Amino acid sequence: MIVMTKKTLRVTKIKDGTVIDHISSGHALDVLKILGVTGRVAGVVTVAMNVPSKRHGAKDMLKIEGRELNSKEVDKIALLAPHATINIVRNYKVLGKQRVKLPEIIRGIMKCANPACVSNSDEPVQPTFYVEKEDPLRIRCHYCGHIMEKQDVLTQF
Amino acid sequence: MIVMTKKTLRVTKIKDGTVIDHISSGHALDVLKILGVTGRVAGVVTVAMNVPSKRHGAKDMLKIEGRELNSKEVDKIALLAPHATINIVRNYKVLGKQRVKLPEIIRGIMKCANPACVSNSDEPVQPTFYVEKEDPLRIRCHYCGHIMEKQDVLTQF
Repeated sequence: MIVMTKKTLRVTKIKDGTVIDHISSGHALDVLKILGVTGRVAGVVTVAMNVPSKRHGAKDMLKIEGRELNSKEVDKIALLAPHATINIVRNYKVLGKQRVKLPEIIRGIMKCANPACVSNSDEPVQPTFYVEKEDPLRIRCHYCGHIMEKQDVLTQF
Repeated sequence: MIVMTKKTLRVTKIKDGTVIDHISSGHALDVLKILGVTGRVAGVVTVAMNVPSKRHGAKDMLKIEGRELNSKEVDKIALLAPHATINIVRNYKVLGKQRVKLPEIIRGIMKCANPACVSNSDEPVQPTFYVEKEDPLRIRCHYCGHIMEKQDVLTQF
């Protein structure tokens, strides 16, 4: 159940699914995109954007019923919403609250945006990036030093 | 306030803004797109997708606080969500419930997708379409007869 008043938005138990809270304001639709949620498959999805938040001024949140995220999906969310918390709910019980955590080194989630980078060649090289800054995102390619920001990552999802 | 339980979603009064209900299921994000709502400007926006509906099996709905739609925006919504209802709310009062209505002839909202059409030339010709079918959308260009469907329209917004 979501109860939203003028000043507060509270999320209580849903039967099964995932609640993603504390998404950086303005990024709920990006998170939907990286999760491939178009609203054209079954399952209720609720989104609230620009909700007042004590911690960050404003935040977005997302509730996806009937779906649990895997670790790769959680890592992708960390790229765009480093302060997000993820609650997996089964049979009305929250199985645990989890903060997303961007690793220091990111492997295999996305490609380098530099077409000349060796990781984009036929060589058996796994794209690898160092996280230089979390928010706003700034990551550096291990192979060619190319810097990528949030928007560069988002276009790949 | 939105109160959403397992089976129902009810929208009661918000202070100021627009509530768009009975959006064809799967099209809430499209409606956000045509309204230019990215979630990156101020104002709380709430979206619910695939909510059970007596009338159409499932529906989407959308609540945009602090914004009232103009008639051109309402016409655009009609193209994508012909069953939608629009409630304008001011100071907690619903000023009137309005069903969107697709006119038989559409002028000036979008361009013909046929690049060779005279309406895409330098001639002083206003793009004009006949609505052949509402849902799924099928419109025909007055000048060249080119048929456009929902996806063709959506790419222009």
